[in-house]
Amino acid sequence: MQSHDNLAPVMSGISPTPHRVGTPADSETDIGTRIHALAARLFPICRSITGDGVRETLGILGQHIDLTQHEIPTGTQVFDWVVPPEWNIRDAYIKDASGRKIINLAESNLHVVSYSNPIHRIMQLSELKAHIHTLPDQPDLIPYRTSYYSEQWGLCMSHNTFLALEDGDYEVLIDAEKTVGHLTYGEYLHKGTSDKEVLLSAHICHPSLANDNCSSLALLTMLGKTMRARNTHYSYRFLFAPGTIGALSWLAENEARVGRIDHGLIVSCVGDGGGPTYKRSRLGNATIDRAMESVLCTGNRQAIMQDFSPYGYDERQYCSPGFNLPVGLFQRSGFGTFPEYHTSADNMTFITPENLALSFRIITEVIDILETNWTPVNLFPKGEPQLGRRGLYASLGGDKSAGQTSMAFLWVLNLADGAHSLLDISLRSGLPYTDIFHAAQLLLAKGLLRNGPNKTAKH
Amino acid sequence: MQSHDNLAPVMSGISPTPHRVGTPADSETDIGTRIHALAARLFPICRSITGDGVRETLGILGQHIDLTQHEIPTGTQVFDWVVPPEWNIRDAYIKDASGRKIINLAESNLHVVSYSNPIHRIMQLSELKAHIHTLPDQPDLIPYRTSYYSEQWGLCMSHNTFLALEDGDYEVLIDAEKTVGHLTYGEYLHKGTSDKEVLLSAHICHPSLANDNCSSLALLTMLGKTMRARNTHYSYRFLFAPGTIGALSWLAENEARVGRIDHGLIVSCVGDGGGPTYKRSRLGNATIDRAMESVLCTGNRQAIMQDFSPYGYDERQYCSPGFNLPVGLFQRSGFGTFPEYHTSADNMTFITPENLALSFRIITEVIDILETNWTPVNLFPKGEPQLGRRGLYASLGGDKSAGQTSMAFLWVLNLADGAHSLLDISLRSGLPYTDIFHAAQLLLAKGLLRNGPNKTAKH
Amino acid sequence: MQSHDNLAPVMSGISPTPHRVGTPADSETDIGTRIHALAARLFPICRSITGDGVRETLGILGQHIDLTQHEIPTGTQVFDWVVPPEWNIRDAYIKDASGRKIINLAESNLHVVSYSNPIHRIMQLSELKAHIHTLPDQPDLIPYRTSYYSEQWGLCMSHNTFLALEDGDYEVLIDAEKTVGHLTYGEYLHKGTSDKEVLLSAHICHPSLANDNCSSLALLTMLGKTMRARNTHYSYRFLFAPGTIGALSWLAENEARVGRIDHGLIVSCVGDGGGPTYKRSRLGNATIDRAMESVLCTGNRQAIMQDFSPYGYDERQYCSPGFNLPVGLFQRSGFGTFPEYHTSADNMTFITPENLALSFRIITEVIDILETNWTPVNLFPKGEPQLGRRGLYASLGGDKSAGQTSMAFLWVLNLADGAHSLLDISLRSGLPYTDIFHAAQLLLAKGLLRNGPNKTAKH
Repeated sequence: MQSHDNLAPVMSGISPTPHRVGTPADSETDIGTRIHALAARLFPICRSITGDGVRETLGILGQHIDLTQHEIPTGTQVFDWVVPPEWNIRDAYIKDASGRKIINLAESNLHVVSYSNPIHRIMQLSELKAHIHTLPDQPDLIPYRTSYYSEQWGLCMSHNTFLALEDGDYEVLIDAEKTVGHLTYGEYLHKGTSDKEVLLSAHICHPSLANDNCSSLALLTMLGKTMRARNTHYSYRFLFAPGTIGALSWLAENEARVGRIDHGLIVSCVGDGGGPTYKRSRLGNATIDRAMESVLCTGNRQAIMQDFSPYGYDERQYCSPGFNLPVGLFQRSGFGTFPEYHTSADNMTFITPENLALSFRIITEVIDILETNWTPVNLFPKGEPQLGRRGLYASLGGDKSAGQTSMAFLWVLNLADGAHSLLDISLRSGLPYTDIFHAAQLLLAKGLLRNGPNKTAKH
Repeated sequence: MQSHDNLAPVMSGISPTPHRVGTPADSETDIGTRIHALAARLFPICRSITGDGVRETLGILGQHIDLTQHEIPTGTQVFDWVVPPEWNIRDAYIKDASGRKIINLAESNLHVVSYSNPIHRIMQLSELKAHIHTLPDQPDLIPYRTSYYSEQWGLCMSHNTFLALEDGDYEVLIDAEKTVGHLTYGEYLHKGTSDKEVLLSAHICHPSLANDNCSSLALLTMLGKTMRARNTHYSYRFLFAPGTIGALSWLAENEARVGRIDHGLIVSCVGDGGGPTYKRSRLGNATIDRAMESVLCTGNRQAIMQDFSPYGYDERQYCSPGFNLPVGLFQRSGFGTFPEYHTSADNMTFITPENLALSFRIITEVIDILETNWTPVNLFPKGEPQLGRRGLYASLGGDKSAGQTSMAFLWVLNLADGAHSLLDISLRSGLPYTDIFHAAQLLLAKGLLRNGPNKTAKH
Repeated sequence: MQSHDNLAPVMSGISPTPHRVGTPADSETDIGTRIHALAARLFPICRSITGDGVRETLGILGQHIDLTQHEIPTGTQVFDWVVPPEWNIRDAYIKDASGRKIINLAESNLHVVSYSNPIHRIMQLSELKAHIHTLPDQPDLIPYRTSYYSEQWGLCMSHNTFLALEDGDYEVLIDAEKTVGHLTYGEYLHKGTSDKEVLLSAHICHPSLANDNCSSLALLTMLGKTMRARNTHYSYRFLFAPGTIGALSWLAENEARVGRIDHGLIVSCVGDGGGPTYKRSRLGNATIDRAMESVLCTGNRQAIMQDFSPYGYDERQYCSPGFNLPVGLFQRSGFGTFPEYHTSADNMTFITPENLALSFRIITEVIDILETNWTPVNLFPKGEPQLGRRGLYASLGGDKSAGQTSMAFLWVLNLADGAHSLLDISLRSGLPYTDIFHAAQLLLAKGLLRNGPNKTAKH
């Protein structure tokens, strides 16, 4: 029998009072401010799937957590893929005949198609046009485009800038190079008492896009930093890797050890005010999926819950049939659903400390569930035990309904048959896990429950 | 093979024609009138969880059915509870300085908080106020309040009366006493050919509240009286016990025999025009749950169907994890959902003979299902047998649809594979059980079916 | 491992581009025109459940496919039924006193109740009226009525004609006879490499009703004709039989061989613009049910999907509990739901080549699924294989969503774990089977898949 005292210190300290998603507590704005500030430092850096932008970013994250930087050589086979050449860029612009710079990498690193081949030539507008990408429906915005794994060059600009281009000669410079080098990713392990792991991963390959994904890089870093003070059961692996090839590289290097991952979350776009959105793992009913449902959908909370589909972020790799790991995707607005997505409007004004704080809170609540979930067994299973004489029930009767606190006691006692964990009880009752947990801890302390064998293993 | 003749006498005689819930047949108003008259006799009595009010109520019920009165001594341990002292009250009032009675127990026994400690003192309004309960949102009504298992005194009045109280001295009398005595409950057993039981239970602890629960005390009593003329398969146990502690006392005394309960219903608030409302047993898919669904939701009927939750009436005890009995809750309006709930507006004008008759009919139809359900086996399973030459099908063809009668024949024959009971067929087809039953009896009489082994046991 | 080349020739040649149901491709109107023309030849013939009308109809169908005509003698026992006498009619009319024909079989064979007894008498209007059937709510239309298996005579007319009848004598002639003869049905077998069969059946007993069921007789005949050019895995059995007694006769003659039927469709009312409507087999989740769901409900398509019920066409016999075959019902408007149903308004203007072409396409797509479904196994299950370097993925990234083609590749790869057939993948992804099939063939050709053991057998 696990005692109350063993369990109590595990909770994150977040108030058990259920808040509507969308309304963070005042005390949480501080963490939001710190995440926002870190994201702002990352925003200007020109990242891609390889190159110094990733290293510079990891360097900043490493000022907060004890990050290990991994370098995978160009040409390394990772499953069906090969680590590509390292891409670095120094400068890029288009100058018109008068020498005026139409676009300039220094102003926005979205101006260059990521992984573009280098070029430096004078050319006619007609030739140039074939290499320019714009968004006719959002004429003020610069699109974000990539050309990984293909040999082409390209530049991006607002459609209005494009329409204003006059015939004539233009000097086009993309001072980039693809060289034999490395793919870089960063990893931080928060050690728990168990070597079973929770994977928390954010893609690091996007350049100056604030929500996608400076928000998540900063949030996970601050989460890792915060957790240093917490003794956990699980070990928590934080991964900051380029999309697809980075996740595949990590999987290839850790193939023998992926069985340690009991739960996982891909995190992206966590700074805007949309959603929250959760896409379930391929398993569909893993503990991580159910914990997310409890956090996002009990009480009065509402969220967008999606079944797994094989398009998105790196859950595509973790949930491929050869791995089929219990890894879901957490976002605020879902990718592709907000107009700022993959444009220059995804900037630092698009994400806010309040939204980041709420996203932080949601992930923390999920971790609280993973850490604290247990299976109660009612020691007075015949009828209800008398809560009133234990101070657990209002002394005056006749009101229309039991309060939410009383309901939590009643649900825990009724489902404490050894077949339902606290997470199960939260989902069955529709009450927030925090309410169920605190009710169960009080009942345990009062001697009404014992801690049963944990029947809700891994997934 | 069970013959038609063995089955036919079992039905209650209620017409197989499906009525919309809400429209009782004319022939049923008589039973409604009798239930209403009995409820009116019970209404004025000041009941509580113990005391002479319960005994007086059981005495009246015992004029109709052969009721056994059980007395459990104060101090008896029942599971986690102890039977409390017996509470009796003779008088209560508040007198103002002029000697005028502001409230008077003789006018409404809701004026006293049930189980209130006694008091007799002159006091200032300021002191008195702390002990007065009102309903500010329903200022004309007196609330119903209880203080079981705690030591306090209190009085209830309308909020308008409360607001009109002027400063000054008041004489407060609650001439009540808590003494070593007994908890009282009543029990009536209608014996069937089997010792398997159907439990029908109504709480007897509420004072002058007509719907909650004079309606159910009267309805179950009249049901028991009516059933004396009926030979049944099951034995029917009628229980009239105080809420919670009464149910627990019965369970404690009968613990070794609860396995005999194959089906059960808690009945409350059956005299108003709302609902009908059914809350499923904790098992969720017990035969009683499915029988109720057939009665309430087939044909054109509509009802409020709720999954089990651990707040409500004595289903809380019967469905505790240590018993987990197949016991549901039947109501018209659900508790707490109607404005008259637990107020002085829940009086004899709030319940009507028509509504009581319909509630009676619904419970009777459920009993009909429990008594008559059988599993047909089609003796002509290859293709349809020719119904026309047996007079079971219209002789002229070409109409748009088969009538409901023909549909009942077709559904029974199609699902008569030995794996579906008549109740199963009613639920799968959406046709009322009475239609399915009568179709099956005709098909049995015509030699098209045999009675298969009953695969729909207990639950 | 089954090669790409083994599978590719099997598809029907219908474009993999998903069309909205309701929008047939231009190239399909030709088959619609041919079906419509054949239906027009069948329309005038006076069919019933026995007699020369059925033989004449089969004779016309036999000009297109190699039809075998079966004759079952009057008096033959088929399960619970007996083949009735053969009914033939030469003439029918009502003449008024002036000798004017009020109704005349030559103008519409709906004027005579099908299987009516003969009569030839002068009678008063009052006597005549008891034998006349009209549609008061559709006063311009003649109803379709039958009196199989009963001895009566009757005539049908528009309600307006009926109202205009004046008192007086009328000469009534129904020059029909019921004689010892035969029940006739036709059968065509398209042989595949397997002796496992797909049953396609249309009732042939209705007289001049275009949608119900000249449309289906013509459609299935043209389908059989078209399929002669196709090498199939399954054998396809086309059945043109009178309703109920015809289906029962076929089942009685083939009882030992019904286990060969892996999939079946009853086809009726396929020429109007409603629906499409599919009623599932009694099994509910048979491959035919799932194939229909894929064809009718993936992509942007919408349809009316119904669970099995035991009223309708000959699925009643095939899905009786003694057979329980995987046979569903395909229609456009469901029977009884359109105002023209079983009236003289169900004529050749009610059905159109376009609607027939679309119904033809739907059934062909279902056959394509039955013929081509296979279970892929991903040979690169760890992470995604690199589609880009195989030319299967857009080279420029950053767009909001993957195209439908990319999604098909991703879904196939993700679910190619040996437990999902292409049909399963279509239903899980919501993408049209054709998209999934073509994606899988490409992935197979590129060496990314192998053909796994078929785990989606029969049903």
